[in-house]
Amino acid sequence: MSYSLGENRYGKSRIRLVTVRRGPERHHLRDLTVDVSLEGDFGAAHTTGDNANVVATDTMKNTVYALARDRFTGPAEAFGLELGRHFAAESAVTRATITLREHGWSRVELDGGPAPDAFVRSGELVRLARVSVDGAPGASSVGPANVEAGFEDLTVMKTTKSAFSGFARDRFTTLPEVDDRLMATKISATWGYRAGLPDGAGFDFDAAWERARTALLRSLAEHFSPSVQASIWIMASAIMDAEGSIDWVRMILPNLHHWSVDLSPFGLDNPGEVFVATTEPHGLIDATVHRRS
Amino acid sequence: MSYSLGENRYGKSRIRLVTVRRGPERHHLRDLTVDVSLEGDFGAAHTTGDNANVVATDTMKNTVYALARDRFTGPAEAFGLELGRHFAAESAVTRATITLREHGWSRVELDGGPAPDAFVRSGELVRLARVSVDGAPGASSVGPANVEAGFEDLTVMKTTKSAFSGFARDRFTTLPEVDDRLMATKISATWGYRAGLPDGAGFDFDAAWERARTALLRSLAEHFSPSVQASIWIMASAIMDAEGSIDWVRMILPNLHHWSVDLSPFGLDNPGEVFVATTEPHGLIDATVHRRS
Amino acid sequence: MSYSLGENRYGKSRIRLVTVRRGPERHHLRDLTVDVSLEGDFGAAHTTGDNANVVATDTMKNTVYALARDRFTGPAEAFGLELGRHFAAESAVTRATITLREHGWSRVELDGGPAPDAFVRSGELVRLARVSVDGAPGASSVGPANVEAGFEDLTVMKTTKSAFSGFARDRFTTLPEVDDRLMATKISATWGYRAGLPDGAGFDFDAAWERARTALLRSLAEHFSPSVQASIWIMASAIMDAEGSIDWVRMILPNLHHWSVDLSPFGLDNPGEVFVATTEPHGLIDATVHRRS
Amino acid sequence: MSYSLGENRYGKSRIRLVTVRRGPERHHLRDLTVDVSLEGDFGAAHTTGDNANVVATDTMKNTVYALARDRFTGPAEAFGLELGRHFAAESAVTRATITLREHGWSRVELDGGPAPDAFVRSGELVRLARVSVDGAPGASSVGPANVEAGFEDLTVMKTTKSAFSGFARDRFTTLPEVDDRLMATKISATWGYRAGLPDGAGFDFDAAWERARTALLRSLAEHFSPSVQASIWIMASAIMDAEGSIDWVRMILPNLHHWSVDLSPFGLDNPGEVFVATTEPHGLIDATVHRRS
Repeated sequence: MSYSLGENRYGKSRIRLVTVRRGPERHHLRDLTVDVSLEGDFGAAHTTGDNANVVATDTMKNTVYALARDRFTGPAEAFGLELGRHFAAESAVTRATITLREHGWSRVELDGGPAPDAFVRSGELVRLARVSVDGAPGASSVGPANVEAGFEDLTVMKTTKSAFSGFARDRFTTLPEVDDRLMATKISATWGYRAGLPDGAGFDFDAAWERARTALLRSLAEHFSPSVQASIWIMASAIMDAEGSIDWVRMILPNLHHWSVDLSPFGLDNPGEVFVATTEPHGLIDATVHRRS
Repeated sequence: MSYSLGENRYGKSRIRLVTVRRGPERHHLRDLTVDVSLEGDFGAAHTTGDNANVVATDTMKNTVYALARDRFTGPAEAFGLELGRHFAAESAVTRATITLREHGWSRVELDGGPAPDAFVRSGELVRLARVSVDGAPGASSVGPANVEAGFEDLTVMKTTKSAFSGFARDRFTTLPEVDDRLMATKISATWGYRAGLPDGAGFDFDAAWERARTALLRSLAEHFSPSVQASIWIMASAIMDAEGSIDWVRMILPNLHHWSVDLSPFGLDNPGEVFVATTEPHGLIDATVHRRS
Repeated sequence: MSYSLGENRYGKSRIRLVTVRRGPERHHLRDLTVDVSLEGDFGAAHTTGDNANVVATDTMKNTVYALARDRFTGPAEAFGLELGRHFAAESAVTRATITLREHGWSRVELDGGPAPDAFVRSGELVRLARVSVDGAPGASSVGPANVEAGFEDLTVMKTTKSAFSGFARDRFTTLPEVDDRLMATKISATWGYRAGLPDGAGFDFDAAWERARTALLRSLAEHFSPSVQASIWIMASAIMDAEGSIDWVRMILPNLHHWSVDLSPFGLDNPGEVFVATTEPHGLIDATVHRRS
Repeated sequence: MSYSLGENRYGKSRIRLVTVRRGPERHHLRDLTVDVSLEGDFGAAHTTGDNANVVATDTMKNTVYALARDRFTGPAEAFGLELGRHFAAESAVTRATITLREHGWSRVELDGGPAPDAFVRSGELVRLARVSVDGAPGASSVGPANVEAGFEDLTVMKTTKSAFSGFARDRFTTLPEVDDRLMATKISATWGYRAGLPDGAGFDFDAAWERARTALLRSLAEHFSPSVQASIWIMASAIMDAEGSIDWVRMILPNLHHWSVDLSPFGLDNPGEVFVATTEPHGLIDATVHRRS
């Protein structure tokens, strides 16, 4: 044969799962978008059309809903571990990766306190969990799990304590140096929990996530930023300072430029008050910071 | 000539305006997307290519930024009135309509209180204001203003107290009657303030908006919904009960269906706990409720 | 009662319908997104929660699929007439409006000619049809139909023969006059067929649509444009010159600005060769041209 | 220090470039979205806020426009090589990656042939080129280049010759086996050209791209598909059969499910004619096929 199969994976994406737990006092609402992806002994499906090893993606979808019935009772990471172990136990699977995006809902506020059964979707961010579990090829035992968490689409702005100067200049450089600018970005942050967390049992993923989020936001507010690059380093360090179980943090930050409007043609000054927000083009900074062992 | 010009308007859309007011204690951040649209004596531009009456849309953009320098200090409705009067005073203009969508930002919470200069974009809803001002053709005087407000993209869910039964059945009807379902929708609500509000002077648009929003959410949480149609009536009435300056409320509500998953093939029951969220197709209900004079 | 119900309508949106007709030689693929909207005697559903007159939106969806089985064999307009008459015959309905967006697919080209059963989606435009049929309240007879057609999302560009000069100047005007610019827009065009077309029987909606599209594109290529406003007039006139059954044409055209890049800081000229394409903000021109009776 | 910087890169994304070459007979229109991304000696920017090595992303944008003036005269791959070598020559850069997405425009057809200066954007696909050039740290010499090409967003459908059967069944499997189904997908295909292509000089990237696209579409139309996995293998092999300079092909294919509608409640059969198109959830298959050396 002239060709060979290289890296490959397959799965079901955008499985939309909503659960309502109907407690005596109030309802609990959860809202996830789940992606399942498998790697393993699937070469025959590609090269000879033999589907014997293939778990149908429709079955993946069914499994997510069926396991959600009884086992989705804690953090998304724990449900991801349940799903990951289930799929990794399939004999053909060498790795199952479960990505869970949780959409937040807050309770409507009433005079007597939070409503028991009415909710508003909070669009501030999407909480992210990603769990991968290794499978033993040809066996139903499962190997160690790897748990990542984070969030997407948290849009933030610093209206001062941000500068950009001292950068390289060449014949195509026209950008002036600025010692006070707006810095706005839509944060995607992912972090990895230390291997050997006892597979999540007894570990409070919600509390760890909340400590990480809080540390990032405080750091955002307090640090002086000489560049988006430096802000990643500072905020990632703050996350790991705050949460010892996190081994690394990756951030991918667009620089959502806000340009000061030149009002001088209209006889007006603009002392850092009026800006045009832009989305295109945008800077894009991607960096990972590791805890030293 | 065989053809005649009918209804027409033109303007600039998606003018992105961000302002930072730098107070001694803390910064104030505002974020608007503004659309300007004009109607008037623009027939010659269409039929003979004579642009003499045409205010360039680039000029509209400049005007929004220039007026924002000093006059965007209160609610979006008040800034819309400034802009509307400016454009209505152009001699060719018979009506200027300004639509302002405000994107909310909240302060990062620190130990010592809210941050003075760091913000998180709150994606819960977009606040809407729409102001139209009549112009006197051929003169620079302006006529009365009309002010609408509301919001877009407030996604909400009731996990009980929603039913749908007693509807018409024909040979294409398969939907069962249900006395307890999830009801989810993304609310677009617009309301009109009473004419004769003294052009906004002395009227607190922020407080009125907040009363309307609060009334809608409380009503959402508390009422029993026999249909989305009935919910619009109930929530619109609640808004007008709470805010006497509002003459009418229009809501356009998609019915974002959540289907209970049949888990019986897997030997599981599903007592209203596991749902698939869908976006397509969706019901769409559009109704306006008026205060009787 | 303090409140009264004003304008209202409801329906099902984004019903995704794909049909494959399996001819002996080749398959015929159609792809529609259908919206159904009803007006009529639905006040009780709003004000008293009485759903007796309400056709469930789920029933609307079922009806679209069921009628598609045998009756979707011609142009979208004809299928819209079938659906419109069906719903207008419901006793509570005073008007049924059916909007059909058709997504084009072309055949894969093979050496021996077009493939019989493999297709590529052509993203150039979305064809639009909108049919409304009046119902007789309390009766199952239906009244006259109104048929509109058009398209959405046809993005076009003229690289010359477009200017913008002679416009009004005030203190906020900085735009220079230009006698040669790029003009780019994403065309939404809708037109209305003459009432009294015998309800579509014997009328070739496909041929009329094609004549209108061709006339618009030729006119786009050939005319000199002193403004987007004038281009609407010219292109709408060309459509009606080409197709006598069309009574009016409405176009809503964003002005997708392409700004010439100033390359002089880099020692380079730019004789109308290098542009930055922008999407925000954009001009927006909306006008309707009527055939004189 | 407790932390160390791991993988990192930065750049400018979504640089929108349109060029018009004004030939004596007709204009030539090109439309690109360009992303620039650099890796190299940028640690100090992160860890100490020292920007001395940092090429501002604004400079990247300027460079794209300036080089486009004279050097964007051939295929996107060739312009990517120009840009990649320019940035790789910066002393801090170890790798420059340029991603170019080209949006197609076709000429308006007139009676006398294609229009010289009026264009329609063809939305069928986005052509992709990605060039990476290695830099010598601390020097302005550049190393070898790597060129990839492909396309995104080509939506296709097979209305027969697609099946899915013989797959694994477990207690969560409800999907029936089918020997004739619709297969629809939105193709993202990327391929790598053989290293040692003399840096693009003398190589006809347009012709190679066109051979690859044609081979993929023919293969799509002609092969029997036992699964999406097998289709990737077959189509990737066809691409490499047709174009000997391609060493590998990667495809990422969503399975855009079309479900046959059950019309039996309405007394109708459905012999593979009426389908509901869905987007969520969807299967997702990702595989790379290599040419054996």
